[in-house]
Amino acid sequence: MDTSGRPTFSLKEIAERFGGEVIGDAAVRVEQVATLEAAQPHHIAFFSNPRYRRLLEQTRAGAVLVNGEAAGATSRPRIVCEDPYAYFARLSTFLNPPEEVIAATHPDADIHPTASVDPSCCIGAFVVIGAGAVIGPRTLIQSGAILGAHVKIGADCRIYANVSIYQGCLIGDRVILHSGVVIGADGFGLAMEAGRWRKIPQIGRVLIGDDVEVGANTTIDRGALDDTVIEEGVKLDNQIQIGHNCRIGAHTAIAGCVGIAGSTRIGRYCRIGGSAMIGGHLEIVDNVEISGATTVPKSLLRPGTDTSVFPVALHQDWLKNASHIRHLSSLAARIRELESRLAELERKRT
Amino acid sequence: MDTSGRPTFSLKEIAERFGGEVIGDAAVRVEQVATLEAAQPHHIAFFSNPRYRRLLEQTRAGAVLVNGEAAGATSRPRIVCEDPYAYFARLSTFLNPPEEVIAATHPDADIHPTASVDPSCCIGAFVVIGAGAVIGPRTLIQSGAILGAHVKIGADCRIYANVSIYQGCLIGDRVILHSGVVIGADGFGLAMEAGRWRKIPQIGRVLIGDDVEVGANTTIDRGALDDTVIEEGVKLDNQIQIGHNCRIGAHTAIAGCVGIAGSTRIGRYCRIGGSAMIGGHLEIVDNVEISGATTVPKSLLRPGTDTSVFPVALHQDWLKNASHIRHLSSLAARIRELESRLAELERKRT
Amino acid sequence: MDTSGRPTFSLKEIAERFGGEVIGDAAVRVEQVATLEAAQPHHIAFFSNPRYRRLLEQTRAGAVLVNGEAAGATSRPRIVCEDPYAYFARLSTFLNPPEEVIAATHPDADIHPTASVDPSCCIGAFVVIGAGAVIGPRTLIQSGAILGAHVKIGADCRIYANVSIYQGCLIGDRVILHSGVVIGADGFGLAMEAGRWRKIPQIGRVLIGDDVEVGANTTIDRGALDDTVIEEGVKLDNQIQIGHNCRIGAHTAIAGCVGIAGSTRIGRYCRIGGSAMIGGHLEIVDNVEISGATTVPKSLLRPGTDTSVFPVALHQDWLKNASHIRHLSSLAARIRELESRLAELERKRT
Repeated sequence: MDTSGRPTFSLKEIAERFGGEVIGDAAVRVEQVATLEAAQPHHIAFFSNPRYRRLLEQTRAGAVLVNGEAAGATSRPRIVCEDPYAYFARLSTFLNPPEEVIAATHPDADIHPTASVDPSCCIGAFVVIGAGAVIGPRTLIQSGAILGAHVKIGADCRIYANVSIYQGCLIGDRVILHSGVVIGADGFGLAMEAGRWRKIPQIGRVLIGDDVEVGANTTIDRGALDDTVIEEGVKLDNQIQIGHNCRIGAHTAIAGCVGIAGSTRIGRYCRIGGSAMIGGHLEIVDNVEISGATTVPKSLLRPGTDTSVFPVALHQDWLKNASHIRHLSSLAARIRELESRLAELERKRT
Repeated sequence: MDTSGRPTFSLKEIAERFGGEVIGDAAVRVEQVATLEAAQPHHIAFFSNPRYRRLLEQTRAGAVLVNGEAAGATSRPRIVCEDPYAYFARLSTFLNPPEEVIAATHPDADIHPTASVDPSCCIGAFVVIGAGAVIGPRTLIQSGAILGAHVKIGADCRIYANVSIYQGCLIGDRVILHSGVVIGADGFGLAMEAGRWRKIPQIGRVLIGDDVEVGANTTIDRGALDDTVIEEGVKLDNQIQIGHNCRIGAHTAIAGCVGIAGSTRIGRYCRIGGSAMIGGHLEIVDNVEISGATTVPKSLLRPGTDTSVFPVALHQDWLKNASHIRHLSSLAARIRELESRLAELERKRT
Repeated sequence: MDTSGRPTFSLKEIAERFGGEVIGDAAVRVEQVATLEAAQPHHIAFFSNPRYRRLLEQTRAGAVLVNGEAAGATSRPRIVCEDPYAYFARLSTFLNPPEEVIAATHPDADIHPTASVDPSCCIGAFVVIGAGAVIGPRTLIQSGAILGAHVKIGADCRIYANVSIYQGCLIGDRVILHSGVVIGADGFGLAMEAGRWRKIPQIGRVLIGDDVEVGANTTIDRGALDDTVIEEGVKLDNQIQIGHNCRIGAHTAIAGCVGIAGSTRIGRYCRIGGSAMIGGHLEIVDNVEISGATTVPKSLLRPGTDTSVFPVALHQDWLKNASHIRHLSSLAARIRELESRLAELERKRT
C-alpha cells in the first residue's frame, strides 16, 4: 500500500505495450496490480469471472482490465482486452519482474573443484555442488541446496533454499525448484524374497525439461532402469509425488498433493486437480482433465474430464446413505427380481 | 523409565498447584506422566476414554487422573478433576517444560549485517538470516533453517532444523515451525496463453499469528496479490498444503496430509481430519468439523460435521458393489418405472 | 548406453553365481540390466509380467531372464529361473553395488565434541551432529543432514541430504533415509481448554529397526508418551506421514503419500497402496493388503485385501450417478416398499 518509490504507468502507456483499448481517462497512472477487493486508486485490477461482478461494481481500483462483454459493467477507467487474466499475467510480470540474479558465490558454499559453475551464477551459503556438476549462466542456487555429483542445471534457473538433487539428474533452462523439493531419490523398487524385501538399484535419472516449475516439498524419483522424465513447460504444485519412470507430457499442470505411482505416462496439456491419485503403469493421453481428489486406477485413453468423488454430506446423512453402498449389489438384484415378478403379474393380467 | 535424577511431586503438591481432589494416599510421589498401559509406580496416568476402562483396571501407575464418573473405577491413588486430559496436558507441561533457549549464535550461522537478531536468541549452525530480517527475543532457530530477506519472527518461537521461510513473511510470537516446513513459496498461479503457461508473480506474503504450530514438511504458499493468513492459535499437523490466499481462522486444528486449494477461507475453531481435501475459492464457516479423508468441493455455510468417505470393504465385496455406482442413475430410473407400473396394476385391481 | 569401461559377464558366469539354466549362447556377455523396451545387445532384461509378452518378442536385449513357462517365448539367449524379478534384483545389485562409503569428515561439518562418530563414517558438508549422538561404522551422512542430541544411528546406514532427526531418536543398521525425511518431530497432541489449544509435550522417541528404508520427505512423529516404532525391514515410500505412537510391523511396505494417524498398530508383512489413509487408534493385523487411495476408518482384524475407492468416470456420468448417493437410503426404502406392495398384489392374486 506504500505508493512511494515505485514507478507508475499510464493506461495509455500500458495499452501501447500490451495492447487493448482504453476506455475512460487514459492518463490515469497505476503502479501495481491488485484484486478488485483490495485495490486502491494506484492499482489496476482484472475482472474475468462473472461471479465477481459485485466486486467489480464496488472496487476502488484506479483502473480495471475487462473483456468486451464487461466493457460496460464499470465506469472506472479500463482496458478492454480479449483475455483479462492473461493480460494481467503479462502486466504483473512487467510490474514485478523476478529479482535480478547477482553474480556471486558465497564463501561458505562447498563447490567441488571439478564442478563447473558459470561465473554469472549466484550461489548461496551452505550450498553443496558435487563433483562434475555443471551450472548454467545466471542460475540462482539458494542457501542450503545440495546438488549431487554430475547434476546438470541449465541457464536462468532458480533453485530455492534446501532443495536436494541426487547425482546425475539433468535440469533444463528457466526451471524453478521451490524449497524442500527432492529430485532423484530412489524409486520404490523392491522384490520380496524369502520373507525379506530386496532393494532394486535405481540406476535411472530424472530429466527435467525447460520452463518447468516444481512446488515446495514435491518429490520426483529417479528411474529404476530408464529415466523419469518431466517434459518442458510442466507445472507442478506443492507436495506432489511422482514415482520412478513416470513421464509427464509437456505443458501439463498438476495441483498440490497429487500422487502418481511408478511407470505411468501422462500426456501433454493435461490438468490434474489437487489430491488426485493416479495408479502405476497407466497411460493418460493428451488433454485429459482429472478432477481434484479423484482416484485413477486405469488408463484414460481419450480426452475429457474424469471424476471419482464421494459427495460430501452432513455426517448423519452420510452414515444413513453410505451404509447402503455395502448392499448395492443386493439392491440391484432386488430390483431385477421386482422387475421379473412385476412382469409376471402384468403378463397374467392380460 | 530411568527414575534417577528427576524431581518427584506428591499428589498433594500436584493438586495444590493444578486443582482437583485427591482420593487415596496423597503422599504418593510421581515424577513423570505415562499411558495407563506403560505406567510404572513412579508415573501418573490419565483416564478419559471409557473404551480404555480395562487398561485403568490393569494399570501399574502410581496414580491416575480421573473425572468424577470414574472416581470409583480404580482403587489407585487418584486425582479427580473435571477434564483429565486437559489436566494431564497442564501437568505434563509442568513436568516436561520445553528445553530452555540458551542465548548463543553459532559461528557458522550466516546472518546478514542488516538483520536484527535479539541477543537472547539461539541461532544454530548453517542458519541463514537474510537482509533486514528481524528475530524477536528468546527465539530458537535450529541448524539449517533458511530465512529470506525481511522475514520477521516474534518472541519465543521455535524454528526447527531445515525450515525454509521465503522473503517478507511475518511470523508472530510463540510460533513453532517443525523441520522441513516451507513458508512463502510461490502459489500455483498460471495463465495459459498460446499453448504455454505464463507464471503470475506471487507478490503477497504469508502472515502467521501468535501461538501457531506447523508440523513437519507442511507448506504454506505466499499470496498471489493479497496475503495468505494463518490466524492465532491455529494448529497444523505434518504434510499439510495450504494454497495461496487462504485464510485459516483462529484456533482451527488441521490434521496431517490435508490439502487446501487457493483462496479458501476457513473459519475459527474448525477441526479438519487427516487427508481431507478442500477445494479452492470456498468458504467454511466457524466450528465446522470435516471428517478424515473427506473431499469438500463446495462451501460449508453452517456448523456441523461433514463426511464423504467410501466405505471400506474386502476387495471382492467392493468390486461387487462399486460396479453398481456406475449404474445408480439407471437403478433409480428402474425404481421409478417399477413404482409407476405397480401403481398402474394396483389402480386396475381396485 | 556407453558400453566402455564397465565389466561384462557371460550368461554362464551369471548362472554359476545366481543359479538358473542357460538356454542359447551361454558365452553372450552383458554389462547392465535394462527394460525389455530399452535394452541393447549388451543388456540383460527380465520378463515376469505376461502383459508385456509383445515387448519380449521385440526386445533387442542380449539376454533375458524368464521363468519356466516363458522359456520358449523367445529365441534370445536366456536364463530360466523360478522368479525372474527376484533374480533380476540380485543381479542388478551385483552389477550396481551401492557407492562405497569413503571414510572422511568434511571440515565444514559441525560435530559436537561429546558425539561419537565411527572413524569409518563419511560425514558431508554442513552436517550437524548433536551432543551425545552415536554414529555406527561405515554410515554415510550426506550434506545438510541435521541430527539432534543423543540420536543413535547404527552401521552401514545412508542418511541423505537435508534429512532432519530430532533429539533422542534411535535408528538401526543398514537404514536408508532419503532427502527431506523428518524423524521425531512432535506428534499432534493438543488439549482444548478455555477456547485455546494446549500443546501436550511429546516425550516419546522414534525407534527405527534394521534394514528400514524411508522415502523422500516422509515424516515420522515421535511418541507422545511411549515411542513410535518402525520395525525391521519396513519399507516406506515418499511423502508418507506416520503419527505419534504408531507401530509398523516388520517387513510391511507402504507406498507414497499414505497417512497413518496416531496410535495405530499395523502388522507384519502388510502392503499399503499409495495415498491410502488410515485412521488413528486402529489395529491392522499381519498380512493385510490395503488398496491405493483407500480410507480405513476401522480396525482390520483378518488378512485380506481392503478397498474403498469411488469408481472413476467421465465427469458428466459421475454427476449423473453420484447425485443418487445422497438418496441411497430412500432408494432402499422405496425398494422395500415396492417389495411389500408387490407381495400384497401377488397374495391377492392367488
